[in-house]
Amino acid sequence: MQVEITPEFIANIKQLITDGNNTAVSQLFFEVHHADIAEVLEDLNFDDALYIIKLLDAEKTSDILTELDDDTREKILKELSSEEIAKEIDELNSDDAADIIGELPEEQKKEVISQIEDVEHAKDIVDLLRYEEDTAGGLMGKELIKVNENWTNLRCVKEMRIQAADYDKVHTIYVVDDNDVLKGRLSLKSLLTTSTRTPVREVYNPKITSVRADEQDEDVARTMQKYDLFVVPVVDEMDRLLGQITIDDIVDVIRDEADKDYQMAAGITDDVEADDSIIQLTKARLPWLVLGLFGGLGAAYIMGGFEEALEKHKMLFFFTPLIAAMAGNVGVQSSAIIVQGLANDNIKGSMWNRLMKEVGLSLVNGIVLGLLVLGYGLVQGFDLTVNYVIACSLVVVIIIAALVGTFIPILLDKKGIDPALATGPFITTSNDIFGILIYFLIAEMMLGF
Amino acid sequence: MQVEITPEFIANIKQLITDGNNTAVSQLFFEVHHADIAEVLEDLNFDDALYIIKLLDAEKTSDILTELDDDTREKILKELSSEEIAKEIDELNSDDAADIIGELPEEQKKEVISQIEDVEHAKDIVDLLRYEEDTAGGLMGKELIKVNENWTNLRCVKEMRIQAADYDKVHTIYVVDDNDVLKGRLSLKSLLTTSTRTPVREVYNPKITSVRADEQDEDVARTMQKYDLFVVPVVDEMDRLLGQITIDDIVDVIRDEADKDYQMAAGITDDVEADDSIIQLTKARLPWLVLGLFGGLGAAYIMGGFEEALEKHKMLFFFTPLIAAMAGNVGVQSSAIIVQGLANDNIKGSMWNRLMKEVGLSLVNGIVLGLLVLGYGLVQGFDLTVNYVIACSLVVVIIIAALVGTFIPILLDKKGIDPALATGPFITTSNDIFGILIYFLIAEMMLGF
Repeated sequence: MQVEITPEFIANIKQLITDGNNTAVSQLFFEVHHADIAEVLEDLNFDDALYIIKLLDAEKTSDILTELDDDTREKILKELSSEEIAKEIDELNSDDAADIIGELPEEQKKEVISQIEDVEHAKDIVDLLRYEEDTAGGLMGKELIKVNENWTNLRCVKEMRIQAADYDKVHTIYVVDDNDVLKGRLSLKSLLTTSTRTPVREVYNPKITSVRADEQDEDVARTMQKYDLFVVPVVDEMDRLLGQITIDDIVDVIRDEADKDYQMAAGITDDVEADDSIIQLTKARLPWLVLGLFGGLGAAYIMGGFEEALEKHKMLFFFTPLIAAMAGNVGVQSSAIIVQGLANDNIKGSMWNRLMKEVGLSLVNGIVLGLLVLGYGLVQGFDLTVNYVIACSLVVVIIIAALVGTFIPILLDKKGIDPALATGPFITTSNDIFGILIYFLIAEMMLGF
Repeated sequence: MQVEITPEFIANIKQLITDGNNTAVSQLFFEVHHADIAEVLEDLNFDDALYIIKLLDAEKTSDILTELDDDTREKILKELSSEEIAKEIDELNSDDAADIIGELPEEQKKEVISQIEDVEHAKDIVDLLRYEEDTAGGLMGKELIKVNENWTNLRCVKEMRIQAADYDKVHTIYVVDDNDVLKGRLSLKSLLTTSTRTPVREVYNPKITSVRADEQDEDVARTMQKYDLFVVPVVDEMDRLLGQITIDDIVDVIRDEADKDYQMAAGITDDVEADDSIIQLTKARLPWLVLGLFGGLGAAYIMGGFEEALEKHKMLFFFTPLIAAMAGNVGVQSSAIIVQGLANDNIKGSMWNRLMKEVGLSLVNGIVLGLLVLGYGLVQGFDLTVNYVIACSLVVVIIIAALVGTFIPILLDKKGIDPALATGPFITTSNDIFGILIYFLIAEMMLGF
């Protein structure tokens, strides 16, 4: 059921909690999807949210926990006993369970694990805790349906009934050999359309894409997107089937990756949100601002060096914010296009061609912008020579800013550094300094001060 | 099969094409996944790519076409006859087929459609062409497995065998009534575990999330992410089952959305790539640069208004790029956090609290940065009063820039305008002007010029 979370709905819940009407609260949530309940809990105050978590049964609350914000979940887990947490864990798939246990303090982990009822489930979770969070192993779940290549179709159906009883959704039927080595997959179609005595060996599809447990999550994302996979099996160094990753986890990886690039371009490190504390936000923002400050101090220093020109050509100084802004904007544009190209793996052709193209492009843009500046100067009745100097150096600054914006990310990428670093404050700051320096040098050359 | 696309592999292909060794080329590609072949084609020159498309059979090339860059596909389609295109279309699922036909010139569309062999397939495609590209209808495919609620389990299996024979993958078995109205889904589990004579009516799961055909693609993406769906059925106003959308199409929507926000933040409109023409790139970039130019001219104009202060306090003018840069950076940071918060729907709490928090945050950042400026001035031996004025106004500018960066996106969002517009050049430009104006006003107040 999709529920519209209206202010009335929230008010109603609050009233029922105040009245202590537990039956009504449970009933109200009975038909509601756990993702919607999680949204309601985020809108309530913490005590009410905790009250609801304690009220509903673990089958529902375990799913709700996985949907909550990290911060809210952490706060709720703090209020639950190890026994209560173990009950939630019992209801979850191994990957979600491992994620939650991974968030617990070290001493509590052991306590919770020892209280998980299903020993096999506990083993799976402990296995998963071994993998780094941002690898295929850290994303995978152990729940899957597998059949042996030597079984008949009939036995497959029988065994699958047993295995499927434990899982909500069957995505792929994996075929393995006696050593658990992944051989391929059995399509529902062949299961439905072949005789019951046919052995799996004769009907399975050996074409299957798998990922290694130690692969980076971004590479898994790329593989799944490229081959349009909904699930991908995870294998070890011997190709033994360990688990599977479903696309919903990969969607989160893709979104986080995009969010990270976006934040980096905006000059924010760490994955902060609007609701984080002032200290967290300052930690994510201040370093980039300090970098920008150094850029500004550098610009001031350069301008100080051209002090003697101030009396004759003060107009030059009025245009420094314009020059700095244009250098920054052009640099950010160029770098953003390259960073996205690198991410999507479509930066092709020789460096020389790219160089020529950037020069051509920024020449076109620069000339248009230079003409606008000239036009403005004419209307305002500025000194023609100075006006001309400003327009000319604007063109040069734009070309150089575009080249810096293009080649810094490519260089970083070649050195194995995330090129997204180069968009945002890093490129604006260096282009501010370069831009103003070049501007004054050209002005000096042309005006001879 | 995953194939490493090495320069040797490409060179080998090129040689075989030059030799006219068609058998070897076909053989080489036989085991290669169509997504990999598409990648190879992008690396070849156009004539070689076209040669390969004409050489391989439609079963393979149709899939390759869907994986190619839009530009490359368009160029290849231009070289194919309507009959050849119709053959490719015959092999594709209705959604991919409709996408390709949608890209053809109007007069060719009819010609291609009339040559599709399977009339049912042609009807499906024509149906799909009616929907807007960015709606659920535009994303859905018509291929799906559906069973009538009145059928027995046995009949279901029989009918599914017929339906499944046409499709590669079975995701969900939909249950409909006699009017084709979506009632729910039948799990593989219940199909496997109930007796053959049980009617579907008694075992299907009525809990199913669907989307309306006219829903926006971004809303479909949100729904599928929220409820962790791999496929979602699409219904009309009467809840009749029209088609289904699979998560791989939604992954593209999510990525495009993130790319768009990123580009907008970097001051680029339209979905341009590094390999687009200079004209396309200029169209996407120049308007934002012109906006930035107006900001710079505005700043120059303001500085001109404070000309009389220049002789006594030239230091003030040297710091204008710093003030503008800091105002821009802080504004971009604040707006990026809000834009992401709005996108993820977690901007909560009252406006007053948000205001207080932004002021607090920027006060902390501003004071640190102000102290750094003061320190720099002491080391450089600047006039203490001017130095103090610069530091103080920096703090005020940062606070105001943060407020502008926070509330402009919220305001835009309330007015129904994409708040991502507010990051990037729009906010940097307005903060440049505001920043410099406030800076000089404070300086005038404190220094009394």
